[in-house]
Amino acid sequence: MTNSVTYKYYMPTRIVIGKDCITQNSDIFRTLGKKALIVTGAHSAKRNGSEKDVKTALDSVGIPYQVFDKVMSNPTISCAYEGAKLARENDVDFIIAIGGGSPMDAGKAIALLASQDIAEENLFSGNYEKKVLSMAFVPTTAGTGSEVTQYSILTNDKAQTKTSIASDLLFPTVAFLDAKYTEKLPVETTINTAIDALSHAVEGMLSVRASTISNALASESIRMIMNCVPDMLQALQSGSEGIFNPKKREQLLEASYMAGMVIAQAGTTVVHSMGYSLTYFKDIDHGRTNGLLLGEYLRLVEKSQPELTGRILKAMELSDIDSFQELMRALLGRREDVSPEEITQYSKITMRAKNIANCAVRPTEEDVHEIFERSFLDSSRRSRKKG
Amino acid sequence: MTNSVTYKYYMPTRIVIGKDCITQNSDIFRTLGKKALIVTGAHSAKRNGSEKDVKTALDSVGIPYQVFDKVMSNPTISCAYEGAKLARENDVDFIIAIGGGSPMDAGKAIALLASQDIAEENLFSGNYEKKVLSMAFVPTTAGTGSEVTQYSILTNDKAQTKTSIASDLLFPTVAFLDAKYTEKLPVETTINTAIDALSHAVEGMLSVRASTISNALASESIRMIMNCVPDMLQALQSGSEGIFNPKKREQLLEASYMAGMVIAQAGTTVVHSMGYSLTYFKDIDHGRTNGLLLGEYLRLVEKSQPELTGRILKAMELSDIDSFQELMRALLGRREDVSPEEITQYSKITMRAKNIANCAVRPTEEDVHEIFERSFLDSSRRSRKKG
Repeated sequence: MTNSVTYKYYMPTRIVIGKDCITQNSDIFRTLGKKALIVTGAHSAKRNGSEKDVKTALDSVGIPYQVFDKVMSNPTISCAYEGAKLARENDVDFIIAIGGGSPMDAGKAIALLASQDIAEENLFSGNYEKKVLSMAFVPTTAGTGSEVTQYSILTNDKAQTKTSIASDLLFPTVAFLDAKYTEKLPVETTINTAIDALSHAVEGMLSVRASTISNALASESIRMIMNCVPDMLQALQSGSEGIFNPKKREQLLEASYMAGMVIAQAGTTVVHSMGYSLTYFKDIDHGRTNGLLLGEYLRLVEKSQPELTGRILKAMELSDIDSFQELMRALLGRREDVSPEEITQYSKITMRAKNIANCAVRPTEEDVHEIFERSFLDSSRRSRKKG
Repeated sequence: MTNSVTYKYYMPTRIVIGKDCITQNSDIFRTLGKKALIVTGAHSAKRNGSEKDVKTALDSVGIPYQVFDKVMSNPTISCAYEGAKLARENDVDFIIAIGGGSPMDAGKAIALLASQDIAEENLFSGNYEKKVLSMAFVPTTAGTGSEVTQYSILTNDKAQTKTSIASDLLFPTVAFLDAKYTEKLPVETTINTAIDALSHAVEGMLSVRASTISNALASESIRMIMNCVPDMLQALQSGSEGIFNPKKREQLLEASYMAGMVIAQAGTTVVHSMGYSLTYFKDIDHGRTNGLLLGEYLRLVEKSQPELTGRILKAMELSDIDSFQELMRALLGRREDVSPEEITQYSKITMRAKNIANCAVRPTEEDVHEIFERSFLDSSRRSRKKG
């Protein structure tokens, strides 16, 4: 920042939350445009009923639509261009993204690329004409918070990582939050996405841009997610999905958007940057990567800012970082194999990420290396034997 | 509400907070329009330097402006029409409101009335064309929260009270929050406005529309205001103004906008409606009326929802409502004289207010009467000797 501003706050998305909120508020689509492109993945939006509800609502207000259901996990840049091409060819004037983080990330990029010509080399520049298609977003997992952020995160093969488009233009116009779409999620997805949301709230508190308001939202989000952890552990043990009661599902969805508001203001930290390598190279789920790495980053922060980690642990109602890591192990199970060579490679890539500068405790490459090692290698295989 | 939506959230105002944030972000005015109408009162914006900063910023980006500095306390409907006439005559395309709640309330109505013809009898209807002038708001007290709400509250002589225009169109485009403008406020104004903000946060928690997010913001706002109470008491004792350190002033300003976000979502309760009579008929300061009445309304709520008042008292770090009322007496001093006849009249007017229906514990006219009596009459003069 070039001046003495304490902080800025902006989050213009209209949120509508509750059971059947899409079909009961179909009028809202009329305010967005005359023809929609539904952006989604191949399967989940069909399985959980969200795509059907959107179509019912659009039909009820006489809005035609086209479907683009080719969004893969961790969507690529070319996927976004392909969706935008379809949007233009069909003269759609608004985007409805349905799904987890992937369709929402793609939906934002499509809304941007359909409204203006942007060459691929300028896609992450942040310099765009002030226009974008209107967007209605329907999260069907409780984790990403993308429905209330200005970020579109795409797989960037040139940089061998995931890269963010960040622009205030990308805040969705409206987000419909109906927890019923999350009720049948596999336990593992529920856990991974909940940990993603938890990590957003925690990382927001660890950011140099943390503010009174982002911290207030983060603390409440953390409290709500931790309140659902016993249900998650029980679901893991019993192996059954959908054991949450609907109130808990709604609570996770609320915690997730509030954590999204946190990162919309404060951004994420090195934990996300590190996780992107694990997702890019080893296809490890995004929320899971955060859960595997967060504990060791908290240890680094604790060394110089124990008061800060203390506040986070207090919001979690945990006594220490050991307890947090124990909890992550219980929720995430056996960690993946990552080799010392891979760790060296990922550490270098991580240091090029923008959000390194966003960390209240800014890690060196050596720190990053050590966090990776401590998170993924047995102590005998670590290059440094510190701590 | 006609459907099962749990709640909605919307607050699109961009907030910029920090010392000299206006002059250091003058570019933002360029995004709002080509000619400004500065809406303010006769004196305070000149005394505290805010008007000068706004003019400096406008000059630096070459934006011409007209000044309308005729906004009185508790602005009237005709004041709003007069300002709108000036805006039209001068072809301004955005409004800059500077001051406490009054210039901001007037500024919103002017932004609306300058953009479209609305007959006075339809002014409070909520049915407007979807257009309004852009608005930049500069609060110079820490209390109203108007800079982040969709309400414009005007003195309505026909209804013998204050009435709200409520429309999502009325959210300001941007709010500049610089606590330096509040540093020289008289102690009494600091206290009255802080209690206004406190009341917003508390009433938001007492609303039927209270939500997870509004409660999170309310709790933090309450905590921050209570953290400044010792400074207020000390300032009262010493009789000196400006004894707050700048950090505390910024904290009050933050607490005030966060409490504004609370009522933007949850609305206010009967406490505000009751207070409007005291302001309309007896010219008692708005924040002060809330402080004089809130304790007795909390007692009514406690009877049926002790868990709810318990959460509020917990956020205040007070043990009981007695302690809260004691604190209000210490901050507000001797209450005004209100006669039994006046109480009967005000109670009837109060029951016609829209926000009665907003109360989690909905008071009867008898309840309202009793709250007035217990707040303003010695026990020997009360018509009912309950409780």
